Amino acid sequence: MRTRAQYIERLGKMNNNLYCNGQKMDRLDERQEGTINVMGLTFDAAWDPASKDLCTATSHITGEIINRFNHIHQSVEDLHKKQDMTRFMCNKVGQCIQRCMGIDAANAINAVSFEAQKSPKAKTAYHDNWLKWLERFQREDLVASCAQTDVKGERLKRPAEQDDPDMYVHVVEERSDGIIVRGSKVHISEASISDEILVVPNRALKKGEEAYALAFAVPSDYEGIKQVVHIHNTRKREHYQRGIEYGYTDSYIIFEDCFIPWERVFLCGETQHGGIAALLFALFHRHSYSGCKPAMLDYVIGLSGLAAEINGIESTPHVREMLSKLIMTGELGYAAGYTASDFGKPEVYIPGVGVMKYGPGSYIPNSIYANVGRCLTGEAVFHEQEILCNIAGGMPATFPYEKDLANPETKHLLEKYLNRNPKIPIEDQIKFWLNFADFGLSSFSGPTQYGAYHGGGSPIMEQIAITSQYDLESKKDIVRAIAGMSPRSKKK
Amino acid sequence: MRTRAQYIERLGKMNNNLYCNGQKMDRLDERQEGTINVMGLTFDAAWDPASKDLCTATSHITGEIINRFNHIHQSVEDLHKKQDMTRFMCNKVGQCIQRCMGIDAANAINAVSFEAQKSPKAKTAYHDNWLKWLERFQREDLVASCAQTDVKGERLKRPAEQDDPDMYVHVVEERSDGIIVRGSKVHISEASISDEILVVPNRALKKGEEAYALAFAVPSDYEGIKQVVHIHNTRKREHYQRGIEYGYTDSYIIFEDCFIPWERVFLCGETQHGGIAALLFALFHRHSYSGCKPAMLDYVIGLSGLAAEINGIESTPHVREMLSKLIMTGELGYAAGYTASDFGKPEVYIPGVGVMKYGPGSYIPNSIYANVGRCLTGEAVFHEQEILCNIAGGMPATFPYEKDLANPETKHLLEKYLNRNPKIPIEDQIKFWLNFADFGLSSFSGPTQYGAYHGGGSPIMEQIAITSQYDLESKKDIVRAIAGMSPRSKKK
Amino acid sequence: MRTRAQYIERLGKMNNNLYCNGQKMDRLDERQEGTINVMGLTFDAAWDPASKDLCTATSHITGEIINRFNHIHQSVEDLHKKQDMTRFMCNKVGQCIQRCMGIDAANAINAVSFEAQKSPKAKTAYHDNWLKWLERFQREDLVASCAQTDVKGERLKRPAEQDDPDMYVHVVEERSDGIIVRGSKVHISEASISDEILVVPNRALKKGEEAYALAFAVPSDYEGIKQVVHIHNTRKREHYQRGIEYGYTDSYIIFEDCFIPWERVFLCGETQHGGIAALLFALFHRHSYSGCKPAMLDYVIGLSGLAAEINGIESTPHVREMLSKLIMTGELGYAAGYTASDFGKPEVYIPGVGVMKYGPGSYIPNSIYANVGRCLTGEAVFHEQEILCNIAGGMPATFPYEKDLANPETKHLLEKYLNRNPKIPIEDQIKFWLNFADFGLSSFSGPTQYGAYHGGGSPIMEQIAITSQYDLESKKDIVRAIAGMSPRSKKK
Amino acid sequence: MRTRAQYIERLGKMNNNLYCNGQKMDRLDERQEGTINVMGLTFDAAWDPASKDLCTATSHITGEIINRFNHIHQSVEDLHKKQDMTRFMCNKVGQCIQRCMGIDAANAINAVSFEAQKSPKAKTAYHDNWLKWLERFQREDLVASCAQTDVKGERLKRPAEQDDPDMYVHVVEERSDGIIVRGSKVHISEASISDEILVVPNRALKKGEEAYALAFAVPSDYEGIKQVVHIHNTRKREHYQRGIEYGYTDSYIIFEDCFIPWERVFLCGETQHGGIAALLFALFHRHSYSGCKPAMLDYVIGLSGLAAEINGIESTPHVREMLSKLIMTGELGYAAGYTASDFGKPEVYIPGVGVMKYGPGSYIPNSIYANVGRCLTGEAVFHEQEILCNIAGGMPATFPYEKDLANPETKHLLEKYLNRNPKIPIEDQIKFWLNFADFGLSSFSGPTQYGAYHGGGSPIMEQIAITSQYDLESKKDIVRAIAGMSPRSKKK
Repeated sequence: MRTRAQYIERLGKMNNNLYCNGQKMDRLDERQEGTINVMGLTFDAAWDPASKDLCTATSHITGEIINRFNHIHQSVEDLHKKQDMTRFMCNKVGQCIQRCMGIDAANAINAVSFEAQKSPKAKTAYHDNWLKWLERFQREDLVASCAQTDVKGERLKRPAEQDDPDMYVHVVEERSDGIIVRGSKVHISEASISDEILVVPNRALKKGEEAYALAFAVPSDYEGIKQVVHIHNTRKREHYQRGIEYGYTDSYIIFEDCFIPWERVFLCGETQHGGIAALLFALFHRHSYSGCKPAMLDYVIGLSGLAAEINGIESTPHVREMLSKLIMTGELGYAAGYTASDFGKPEVYIPGVGVMKYGPGSYIPNSIYANVGRCLTGEAVFHEQEILCNIAGGMPATFPYEKDLANPETKHLLEKYLNRNPKIPIEDQIKFWLNFADFGLSSFSGPTQYGAYHGGGSPIMEQIAITSQYDLESKKDIVRAIAGMSPRSKKK
Repeated sequence: MRTRAQYIERLGKMNNNLYCNGQKMDRLDERQEGTINVMGLTFDAAWDPASKDLCTATSHITGEIINRFNHIHQSVEDLHKKQDMTRFMCNKVGQCIQRCMGIDAANAINAVSFEAQKSPKAKTAYHDNWLKWLERFQREDLVASCAQTDVKGERLKRPAEQDDPDMYVHVVEERSDGIIVRGSKVHISEASISDEILVVPNRALKKGEEAYALAFAVPSDYEGIKQVVHIHNTRKREHYQRGIEYGYTDSYIIFEDCFIPWERVFLCGETQHGGIAALLFALFHRHSYSGCKPAMLDYVIGLSGLAAEINGIESTPHVREMLSKLIMTGELGYAAGYTASDFGKPEVYIPGVGVMKYGPGSYIPNSIYANVGRCLTGEAVFHEQEILCNIAGGMPATFPYEKDLANPETKHLLEKYLNRNPKIPIEDQIKFWLNFADFGLSSFSGPTQYGAYHGGGSPIMEQIAITSQYDLESKKDIVRAIAGMSPRSKKK
Repeated sequence: MRTRAQYIERLGKMNNNLYCNGQKMDRLDERQEGTINVMGLTFDAAWDPASKDLCTATSHITGEIINRFNHIHQSVEDLHKKQDMTRFMCNKVGQCIQRCMGIDAANAINAVSFEAQKSPKAKTAYHDNWLKWLERFQREDLVASCAQTDVKGERLKRPAEQDDPDMYVHVVEERSDGIIVRGSKVHISEASISDEILVVPNRALKKGEEAYALAFAVPSDYEGIKQVVHIHNTRKREHYQRGIEYGYTDSYIIFEDCFIPWERVFLCGETQHGGIAALLFALFHRHSYSGCKPAMLDYVIGLSGLAAEINGIESTPHVREMLSKLIMTGELGYAAGYTASDFGKPEVYIPGVGVMKYGPGSYIPNSIYANVGRCLTGEAVFHEQEILCNIAGGMPATFPYEKDLANPETKHLLEKYLNRNPKIPIEDQIKFWLNFADFGLSSFSGPTQYGAYHGGGSPIMEQIAITSQYDLESKKDIVRAIAGMSPRSKKK
Repeated sequence: MRTRAQYIERLGKMNNNLYCNGQKMDRLDERQEGTINVMGLTFDAAWDPASKDLCTATSHITGEIINRFNHIHQSVEDLHKKQDMTRFMCNKVGQCIQRCMGIDAANAINAVSFEAQKSPKAKTAYHDNWLKWLERFQREDLVASCAQTDVKGERLKRPAEQDDPDMYVHVVEERSDGIIVRGSKVHISEASISDEILVVPNRALKKGEEAYALAFAVPSDYEGIKQVVHIHNTRKREHYQRGIEYGYTDSYIIFEDCFIPWERVFLCGETQHGGIAALLFALFHRHSYSGCKPAMLDYVIGLSGLAAEINGIESTPHVREMLSKLIMTGELGYAAGYTASDFGKPEVYIPGVGVMKYGPGSYIPNSIYANVGRCLTGEAVFHEQEILCNIAGGMPATFPYEKDLANPETKHLLEKYLNRNPKIPIEDQIKFWLNFADFGLSSFSGPTQYGAYHGGGSPIMEQIAITSQYDLESKKDIVRAIAGMSPRSKKK
């Protein structure tokens, strides 16, 4: 396992293919400090005696201790630990911990490449390739991002129907030594600070869309790839230091006829497995949300509780009601993930077929519970902002700037008039409101909310997953029996 | 274990202390057939090979096989089975299975009487009394109802502050051989068809309210008790038979200076334990809701799915969205209960103290998860009715009467014009809509909805439980660390 | 103008074509007393000095004073008075006043027949026919119901696509002296106690659906018509009398090759005007809801306020919040209707064309405001029930029967234990809860709720009306200008 | 009337008492360009022939044409025009037009000073002073801001109960020539670009709080006043120009023992009128929201419509449903304001007394309708953000920076992959998404949302206003009559 320092050192040696604000940007550019700082926590935690049990695992390939973020789930216990590790780590930063996309994509590809390799038309030994990549990934303790979201062009057209065929990443040429791919994946979190990128399809696919049924890995600084990076940082502080500096990035990853050697290809042309890859990454990632969203709710609950305490209204009934709503959302989201873990099996729901054994035996969380949890917490995002706004009042919207709080001409006046709770030092009150504004009223806020709403699939995607996978007919049977209707004819 | 027939036979021999519609009512009166029919299912299921594993348990007292509805939970597994048995049984009738109140009260008293007996001022050997009662309860396979809800008089006054001290059931006299109690418990489900009634306090109590800290058991037909019964039946059918006839009753139980011998008294004067008894019955009962409410949602999902199918709109996006909301509510409710079971321990939250070991080792579900689940499903009741109404359209509101559907002058015309889906026999469509109206538009509906909303504690009661028991300060700590605020001072 | 007695006398002389519960039912059958009693209020109010200014109008045809429920709106003032009369009258019964369907259909046909008569292919002088019918309608002070809702068969198929062409009422034969119609209209309120029935189309129509573009009038007891009647009454009281006895009916009206003479035909084959007739009746009727729904909210607010007062919780913050929600819904619904009246014009929105002058100059409320109001109040129905349930608690769900309240063995006990507020006589408390249960927990409740939700068009119908009629492009223009985008090209 | 240029010229001559980011800031500092630009629109519109009818009025004092933003409402028509002017002006910037606070405070003080002057203990001729100030205000076409919100210290303590008496602005000394005031008003919009500040109380007051019953006017750059300014600007654009540059400011206004001469004092010590002043400013300002919130919804509807159009999903049912929700909110808010105007009178609701004639005859909108409208639109703010997020998808959260869109190495790639709708020029698509992010995802967004939620009074303040002013007893009477209960006894 690497240390934070080793991780950063390797980043510093990578080729420069990042673009930001009109120019190339070095991976160790100061604008990336926040995001690297967050990722660094995942290395620290694996070494920290207090957390290493939770944050490491034993590789099922090598038997060695590895960072749990690079592990393939071998049991229900692994699923529980993944959820709990995620909540634990996110609690350190109050936000996303950034390293789930890699583990979620790896677990998806692990199952899909196993099944796809059985295909008589398989272009290469997908799963053998995968295991080789995985072994190095675990051994070198690499960070992977997952590139799933295509630009999609005209939304109501399928990939092969688009005027411009590049609206979904696809194979433009097959060679003896590999494939040439073109297209762009967008909103790819942490790609600018990852070692590797795992690419998976974005949607269910059908005959005629073979070129889009594609999974592979590339180094993040690979030739033929450009990353256009969007930075989500908070404003630097001079006088009132945060407890941790954090930040995030998202990349447009553009594949300009990029060559991928066969040994890095894990799926190429099997449309049914392409769809399952899309669905499985989403499923693992929705399960991740059962860790991170409760953690973000822990943060929102803490913010609400402190805002109410500072405002002196903690005991009022309407605050109690709002706190209970937040707690409900967080813990129902957690319970859904917990149940999804406990019901986990090496099985997957295949549209039109039903639940089937799938993959080499690695564990997959229950899809219904993973989806109901993610949908609940996703839909709650803006209501959480409303609750924060309700409890805080106007305070954070017009809060004085740090320098005015330090300026001798205004400092004592502002401290006098900002003070709302004599039991809490004014410096703590000030830090609290600055932090509150970071979360809910800065340029950092909107992208965070959009990520919490759409990331891992928008609520409507979970609704589709839920309704398409739920056994609705068995519920109708209950009614048929009670109403005295004819039983469902069993042939189908 | 008894059979349905034995259960009914015993009911027939009981003293007549039921009042209904201005006259005394025999326990086997035809108005009670529906409710007896539902309760009968709990006896059938314990004998049925297909369900006996789920619906029986081994008594921890006698080692004998008993009906699970009379069992004291000895493990996490028992908690899981209770939840699953509840959902399974409720699916047979699409409604409440009626026998949870007894098991929930029994589990509460089991723990409370154990702790209260330790009290130096204990009036009698509460737990010894209890175990004796319990042993017979299990051996004779009795049905118990739980009498918790007091009439409460002026709502904003505590028991001892009321003008009329009888607004909460209380001891009016202590004798050497027992106690005299007075007051009334209301909305007591299935009391009119139960063998025994377990009485527990309705609320937290404090010094000076000792007379109200009271738990005991009485036979349902006991001297000094009158039951005024409200019946919830559906209209009898002549032409379109239901698959099952069901019904429910609720009683006002009035204690007219009723004598209770000491051996039936399990708590008498220990106010702190009185409050815990109230809280614990509520907790066990909210956990029951994690079985019955998902079952009622199964039913509502089935109704919605069939209404959409008959109306030919099953594939429309707005129906899909509504179905997903119903599924989310049901499965989040289930997941909350599942997690509450899995986190179950012989521990209880004591207001002002925190979580502590409590009782003789019997298992208690996690309170936070039991409460968030019940609150979610309780708050959803009327929105479920809205969804049913939305999908059904006006059809069930003006549906022809059975006799018009049978009248030769109108039958063929109505069948012609009622037909909305040529793939479903018109007789099934008619039975469906009649059943739909039973559930949502009959005199049966309102009380069912009120029960689903308030039973086991109104949503506001769960909100209070959640917020008073949640570790809010630890969530503030997360914010304090990230914001760079001073740590919480640990002394408290 | 007629008196209540004259209205009833005429009902008694009508042919008997009503079917109810398997037999023919006389119009003056005791099951119809409730609904006749409500309709009678509309006659009383026109004579009552306190309300005659509001409830009468001057006929624009004859210049005579007529009941306002038979008036064609000649001004903005008329629209305001119609809204206010509706709220005023509904406040007398806490429910629907029943006579709006006639005025709304009459106003729709008044405009449509005028335009359709201009058609070169008009089958008869539609508007001349109409004016003749209208003159008698006003002079004889008749009650009309409106038959709009067809059975619709398979919902996703248009009228002419159905397997059975009778799923929408249509012309099966044109003769020299009139037309033969077949089909069934359902959920037709007050048809069993009306003098006349006005029939209008149920939806937008297109070429090939001429047979369905049909509007005409028939006497309610006409040959060739059967009515299958569903009764919505409350339980008779013996001891605790209501202030008013009310009830409602809905009919399935079945046209069995019914002959309609040309002089009663107001539209026959003009598909565009058929669609406008459907839309216009809906529009006038949604405007009616801006009177009746605020009145029903007045009633719900009164119920909530009294329940809170009796329960002693009127001053709690959560009750205040719920009351404010009810008030908001009612008064926003009123304000929407008020604005729709004030913006009323002799104009109509024609799909695909825009807003145009339409009809002979009679006034039509603004469609956007009429629709946003109806949608708001329609969607709120089940949430209102939740609020009532929340405030009332379990009380009304298990309330003792009248006869138990009168039985000397239980009366004094029940009165003792039901008493929650010493400032209110127990008899008033009892009457209140009985009345509360009538509204929310009886067999009367469900149909009332379904009517309030779907009547005048389900919320989704208003959403479609709103979005299809709103000038969305002008709102985009605002954004285009501010964003610096190219202006919308004006050619279209 | 002044021109935009004259307004700016005067600003440039004012004393510098603004602090921003640790230093003094000139009123014409470039950071204030956005906000000055918006305020300038209110001058332009009064001269523009297309809008001058709407945006000017005739002074009831001088008979001269004045800017309507400085007018005292003399009629229902004036109230309508104020609402419509507000919506019209806000549509030019998609946000707040900034000049309502002055007109709303002026109308409140106009009525209050009239009544207070009648007080036998009046300290000065309040209304005479006011008319003198008003005459200059209208003649010189000044801009006023309104300082209402006090810092409030400990929220559950009243002004006189605070440890620090300065938590509400108050009189610390009365002199023969004037008064000395101390305290701070916060979140005072446009104070940094206004000519004058009108100060009014923040809450209802009672005996013993005379020092807080205070209304007066000061020049914004007055001696003894410091403003600490918070700026809300959007990021400057280099390549993709906006159609308008806008911005806003809020000030902490600190009164450091500031001397106010008597002729600028309009209330000083009359606690009842102090409460009415607070209530009346809020009422006028909530009426303003019936203009600006519909305008902001126009903007949100435009954004949603264009986002859907660019994404190619404009015709999907879920988008249609969301658009209908936005339209409903905007138009119900408008209708509420329209009705409040139409029911406007020279009357005010006085707590504990009822509705009474108040003031010199100037018009005051109906309080119930003004409040229900503001509450509806205030509560909708975060749900609007959710709808925008839902329709937009992830696009705006990671949108490339302007300079990357201009960089030749990335420009063509980004334009290729950003294109979602071939019918709309890619430059327009880019400008749209940049503008979308300005509104919903920038540092501008949070404060805007907080302003829209809390400005003019948080939803809970409107709920309190609604429930305390509504005639609940008359609604109970409706129920009493129908239920057959005893009539309300009229004595009270």
